Amino acid sequence: MSDTPLLVRALKREPVERTPVWFMRQAGRSLPEYRALRERHSFFQIAETPELCAEVTLQPVRRHGVDAAVLFADIVTPVLGMGIDVQLVEGIGPVVTPPVASAADVGRLRVPDASAFEPVLEAVRIVRGELSAGQALVGFCGGPFTVAGYLVEGRPSRDFAATKALMYREPAVWHGLMEKLADTFAGYAAAQARAGADVVQLFDSWVGVLSPADYDEFVAPWSARVLAALEVPTIHFGTGTATLLAEMAATGGDVIGLDWRIPLDEGWARAGATKAVQGNLDPTALFAPRAELERQVRDVLRRAAGRPGHIFNVGHGLLPNTPVDAVQLVVDLVHEEGAR
Amino acid sequence: MSDTPLLVRALKREPVERTPVWFMRQAGRSLPEYRALRERHSFFQIAETPELCAEVTLQPVRRHGVDAAVLFADIVTPVLGMGIDVQLVEGIGPVVTPPVASAADVGRLRVPDASAFEPVLEAVRIVRGELSAGQALVGFCGGPFTVAGYLVEGRPSRDFAATKALMYREPAVWHGLMEKLADTFAGYAAAQARAGADVVQLFDSWVGVLSPADYDEFVAPWSARVLAALEVPTIHFGTGTATLLAEMAATGGDVIGLDWRIPLDEGWARAGATKAVQGNLDPTALFAPRAELERQVRDVLRRAAGRPGHIFNVGHGLLPNTPVDAVQLVVDLVHEEGAR
Repeated sequence: MSDTPLLVRALKREPVERTPVWFMRQAGRSLPEYRALRERHSFFQIAETPELCAEVTLQPVRRHGVDAAVLFADIVTPVLGMGIDVQLVEGIGPVVTPPVASAADVGRLRVPDASAFEPVLEAVRIVRGELSAGQALVGFCGGPFTVAGYLVEGRPSRDFAATKALMYREPAVWHGLMEKLADTFAGYAAAQARAGADVVQLFDSWVGVLSPADYDEFVAPWSARVLAALEVPTIHFGTGTATLLAEMAATGGDVIGLDWRIPLDEGWARAGATKAVQGNLDPTALFAPRAELERQVRDVLRRAAGRPGHIFNVGHGLLPNTPVDAVQLVVDLVHEEGAR
Repeated sequence: MSDTPLLVRALKREPVERTPVWFMRQAGRSLPEYRALRERHSFFQIAETPELCAEVTLQPVRRHGVDAAVLFADIVTPVLGMGIDVQLVEGIGPVVTPPVASAADVGRLRVPDASAFEPVLEAVRIVRGELSAGQALVGFCGGPFTVAGYLVEGRPSRDFAATKALMYREPAVWHGLMEKLADTFAGYAAAQARAGADVVQLFDSWVGVLSPADYDEFVAPWSARVLAALEVPTIHFGTGTATLLAEMAATGGDVIGLDWRIPLDEGWARAGATKAVQGNLDPTALFAPRAELERQVRDVLRRAAGRPGHIFNVGHGLLPNTPVDAVQLVVDLVHEEGAR
C-alpha cells in the first residue's frame, strides 16, 4: 500500500486500485449521530470547538468507510473574522446584516491573520491524526463569488441580481470586495493545508449563474488567486457550470467538479484531459429505489470508463434526510465496481 | 408591410426587416402603471378579469413599442381549474396546499374543459383586437415539469428533491400527474390559439435541474404532447438548459429559448439550424450602466449575426424594479441595430 491517500493519487491521475468515493456534505445533517450532537450544540459551536468539529468530520468516515474526510465547516466561516455579522437562520441559510453595498462597507472589512482560524486548524490536526495514511482530508474553502453573493444579497438568492448589479455598476467596489475575500480565503485554505489537509476544495456553489464572459471578468482572477496560493492539490467546484467548465479549468484546480446536468464524459471533455474530475451523481438519486440508484451509479462509472483521474462524488451536497443506507450502498457499489 | 406579425415571420426564419424584441415578464411588476393597478386589485383578480388582464398585457406594448404582447398570466393559472388550491404568497411564490404526493391525489385532479379558461380567452380576444397586424400576441402556458414541481414541492424549490424522489420511486404516479397536466395545458394553450394568440410559449423555467437522461424519460413525452396539440407556432423555454438544448429541440417548439449562461451562437448550434432561437440577455444587465447594457445587447446581436430566426429577449423574466428606461433603451437599440 502506498503512504499517499488513494484520493490524492487519483487526482494526480495515477492509476489506482479502485475509484475513491466521498460525498459533499457527508458530515452533518444526513447522519443521526450528527443530529444527536446538534441537539446540544449550535452549528457554530460545533464548527468552532476543535474536538466537536473533528468528531463530526470523522463520523461519516467511520460509518461509511469513505475515502476522504471533508472538514465540517460552512462557507461563511472565514468571513466571521473579517468583521461581518452572519447568522445561520433555520430554513433560510446565512443572513448577513447589513449586506455589503459600498466602498465604505468594503473598506471596513479586515483580512484576518491565520491565527483567527485556530479552532478550525486544530480540528484539521486532530482529524489528520485520526485518519489512516490511505484516507485523505479535504480542506474546505468557499468560492469568492458564492461568498460575495451572500454578502451582497444579505441572504441566499436565486438570481443574484444585487450582486450582478454591483459588478456592473461599481466594478471597483466589486473587485475590492473580491480581493479581500480572495486574500482571506487564500490564507484560510493555506493554513488548513499546513495543518494537514491533503487537498483543498473551493466550493463555488452558485457561480453557474454567471455568463462565461462575466465569470472571466469578475470572478476568475480571484478564484485563481486562492487556488494559486495552495501547495496542496485543489478541487474546483460549482453547480450549473456546464458552460463554464473550460473557464474554471483554466482558472485553476487539479480536479474540476461536475454536477449531474452534464454527463460525466462530456463534462470531462470540456474540462480537458489534463484535469481530474469529481462527481457527478444527482444527490436526489439517493432517494430513489435501490435499482434506480444502482443504475445511476453505474452510469457515472461507465462514463468514467476506468480512466485515471475520477473521484466519485455527488454533483452537489447530500440533501437533508438522505437515507444513510443509500449512502452506504453507493460507497459499497463504487468500491466494488470501481475496482481495477 | 406584411399582414403577418414581424415576430411570426422571424420565428419561421423568414428574412425580416429588423430583429423583433419583447421581454418575458414585460407585463407586470416592472411597470409603474401595473403597480398602480395592483394597489386596487389582487394578482388573480387582474388575471381573471378580462378587461384588466388585457389592459396589463397591453401596457408594455404601448409604453415600450415591443413587437409582441405576452398574455399576463401565472404558470399556475390553469391548475386552479384542476381542483388544486394555490395561493400566491408575497415573498415566496405559489404555495400549494396540500402538495401532490400520491396516486389518490393525482386521481382527484380534473382535466378542465376549455370553458374553465373563458376569462383568459376573452382577454386574448380583447388584446388581439387592440394590437396592429404587425404586432404578435404570445400565449402563455406553463411547462409540465415546472408546474408539477410546484405541485409536488408545495412551494418554489431550488433542488426539486421531492419531485425527483416521486419520479424515481413512483413513476406511475409521476406520469399520471404529467398526463393530466399535459392534457390540461394542451387544451388551455390550444384555446388561447383559437382565441387569437399568434404563438404560444411553453414556460418550463426550472426544467434545467434535470439531467438529460431524466429529462428524456420523465418530461419530454409530456412537453411534446402539449406542443404537438397546437396549430400555431411555439416557443419552448427553460433556464439552465445548456445541456438540454438538443433534447428540448427534439421534443418540440419552433423557437428554443436560450438563457445567458450560454453564448447565443453556441446555444443556437446546440438547438440546431432548423430552429429559431429567442434570448439571451441576462435580465440583471438592465441594472447595469448604459454603456455596459449596450455592450451586452450588441454582443447578443453580433452572435445572432443577422441570421433569420432570432427573436431578441431576456434569458429569463424581467426582475422586479427593473428600470423602465433600461427596457426602453434595449427596445430602441435592437430596433436600430437589428435593422437590415
